[in-house]
Amino acid sequence: MSRVVKLAVIPGDGIGPEVITEAEKVLDAATSGGDVRFERTRFSLGAARFLETGETLTDTDLDAIRSHDAILLGAVGGVPGDPRLKDANIERGLLLKLRFELDHYVNLRPSKLYPGVPGPLAAPGDIDFVVVREGTEGPYVGNGGSIRTGTPHEVANETSVNTAFGVERVVRYAFELAERRSKKLTLVHKTNVLVHAGGIWKRLVDEVALEHPDVAVDYLHVDAATIFLVTNPGRFDVIVTDNLFGDILTDLAGAVTGGIGLAASGNINPDGAFPSMFEPVHGSAPDIAGQQKADPTAAILSVSLLLDHLGLHDEAQRVTAAVEDDIANRGTAPRTTTEIGDAIAARVSA
Amino acid sequence: MSRVVKLAVIPGDGIGPEVITEAEKVLDAATSGGDVRFERTRFSLGAARFLETGETLTDTDLDAIRSHDAILLGAVGGVPGDPRLKDANIERGLLLKLRFELDHYVNLRPSKLYPGVPGPLAAPGDIDFVVVREGTEGPYVGNGGSIRTGTPHEVANETSVNTAFGVERVVRYAFELAERRSKKLTLVHKTNVLVHAGGIWKRLVDEVALEHPDVAVDYLHVDAATIFLVTNPGRFDVIVTDNLFGDILTDLAGAVTGGIGLAASGNINPDGAFPSMFEPVHGSAPDIAGQQKADPTAAILSVSLLLDHLGLHDEAQRVTAAVEDDIANRGTAPRTTTEIGDAIAARVSA
Ligand SMILES: CC(C)[C@H](C(=O)O)[C@@H](O)C(=O)O
Ligand SMILES: CC(C)[C@H](C(=O)O)[C@@H](O)C(=O)O
Repeated sequence: MSRVVKLAVIPGDGIGPEVITEAEKVLDAATSGGDVRFERTRFSLGAARFLETGETLTDTDLDAIRSHDAILLGAVGGVPGDPRLKDANIERGLLLKLRFELDHYVNLRPSKLYPGVPGPLAAPGDIDFVVVREGTEGPYVGNGGSIRTGTPHEVANETSVNTAFGVERVVRYAFELAERRSKKLTLVHKTNVLVHAGGIWKRLVDEVALEHPDVAVDYLHVDAATIFLVTNPGRFDVIVTDNLFGDILTDLAGAVTGGIGLAASGNINPDGAFPSMFEPVHGSAPDIAGQQKADPTAAILSVSLLLDHLGLHDEAQRVTAAVEDDIANRGTAPRTTTEIGDAIAARVSA
Repeated sequence: MSRVVKLAVIPGDGIGPEVITEAEKVLDAATSGGDVRFERTRFSLGAARFLETGETLTDTDLDAIRSHDAILLGAVGGVPGDPRLKDANIERGLLLKLRFELDHYVNLRPSKLYPGVPGPLAAPGDIDFVVVREGTEGPYVGNGGSIRTGTPHEVANETSVNTAFGVERVVRYAFELAERRSKKLTLVHKTNVLVHAGGIWKRLVDEVALEHPDVAVDYLHVDAATIFLVTNPGRFDVIVTDNLFGDILTDLAGAVTGGIGLAASGNINPDGAFPSMFEPVHGSAPDIAGQQKADPTAAILSVSLLLDHLGLHDEAQRVTAAVEDDIANRGTAPRTTTEIGDAIAARVSA
């Protein structure tokens, strides 16, 4: 008896379609011959779609996506500064809208320095941590506005909204993850300045910590956390943080572990009420689109996170292992996007 | 005819007093025999004062400080987690209060990798840039609050306030600085998410740029900026950014240029309506206080910024040159705080 997983695929813009082709190839390799069949629907969403139709994400799109079990996304966004996209804001109207509408309250971003990967640090040490970034609150809620806009008397505000409901659930997820890893959790915020937003995070971490006496908890201000990410990244295991600090820390973490060509992420609704979405951390990089220059590894590692999320842990493990082997055996000659995808898929099938 | 500069000195807590002793020593060396006499008043402010008197910064303190020409500050803040300081918030009540009350709208933070300084990057390249961080607005305004505090229904908000008045003046300062340096300016924000707060920054940079056609302007999202700070810090010259992003970027910049033991800063009121304040970027580090382990270089470089601000450019230059010489000739043997201060002061006098 075979299980069917309905997968929504959003290749998106720029290098998105290229890396998704390779990600799907690896997904096929990892699941072929197994009990699970992936029934895929492609969604044409992103800057290209906006330029064609003026639409970013319609209710019809959203309803259709919602009826799937999971989402695989490449990257969305047009050429920076394209005047035709001036009022589009694909990021808010598409990417963030999906995260918010589908209640992706856990934005899971593992950072690992694979052996053989060159990075910017002279002595990186052993880097292997996961950032659990809140995905539906904080400064990302879009609760801003301005008065006297465009005049010398403009005032532009932006409000970070943090609820006990929203913070507690992601903190619980992070503690559970810490239990399964090294039992070490670091809260990152800026409690000395953002007294209220920081206060609710501190309180809920302290409260949930009581239920996890075996998890060692520490706290860092976000500015100090960036220092440690370059001087002693090995000190981290699970980091829990808000939406904005998580955005910043994970790009920096991607850089110190050899570039965001390798950084995968999951936008997860742990309750299963909505489909979770898996995507590389990198953007659409229109400057190198269509040139077979993009590294599909981040997209492929996102497939591993997807498989894990679906309970297909062996398959996920095979994908990760294939990526590790591929990285360890990378020569110095540059490879095309397809060549990297083929090589990893072959290792998965081997 | 000699000029008198009334200098308020706030040694503060932890390593503050130690590094300020050396900073004053170098100030003396740089100005002795000259036309300018520094008339100093010491202010006992910080965690120690709070523990003694329950006071953080009284109106009397503030009035007295306001009557000075400039301020030299070591570091303030008690032992993290000290229960007696739980409700003190020295950061907001003292440091940020000074910055806000004295309208320090330019928080100037140079980052330079001096030859011979070991840093975390394998190939740092030539690092020499200045962050112009806004100092009186953004998420730092303290415009936050919570309802149902401490309950499962708590909502905690924090509002970033950005005015055209406040953004334009710091942007103008940054452009003028860029004119005097390499004529390159990078705005860092998160305009794709913080649409309103980011929008006012983008608009005013674009507007002021019209008056500086020879300055090359670019823009980076804060997450991307952290990547470049570790992969290509040499690309930066002048960065202008908001209060929170500036806080994060300058700690990271301090780390990549060899540690915040070297990072100096000026909290500047360019209009001269209020005294400007010069301080190392590092904190009070109570764990190593009184042990002569602190590097006073950041405090000494802050003296150089102070001298520059007072128009004593030659003296400022002599301090910087002495620091560069000292760094270039550092042996491998550890030196005490006093030894470093003595060595730099001797070079200034030589
Ligand atoms: C594109 C942008 C809205 C997004 C974010 O800020 O979350 C991106 O930077 C990310 O990290 O996925
Ligand atoms: C101590 C803290 C309030 C302060 C800040 O956030 O500005 C510090 O980190 C700094 O950068 O000077």
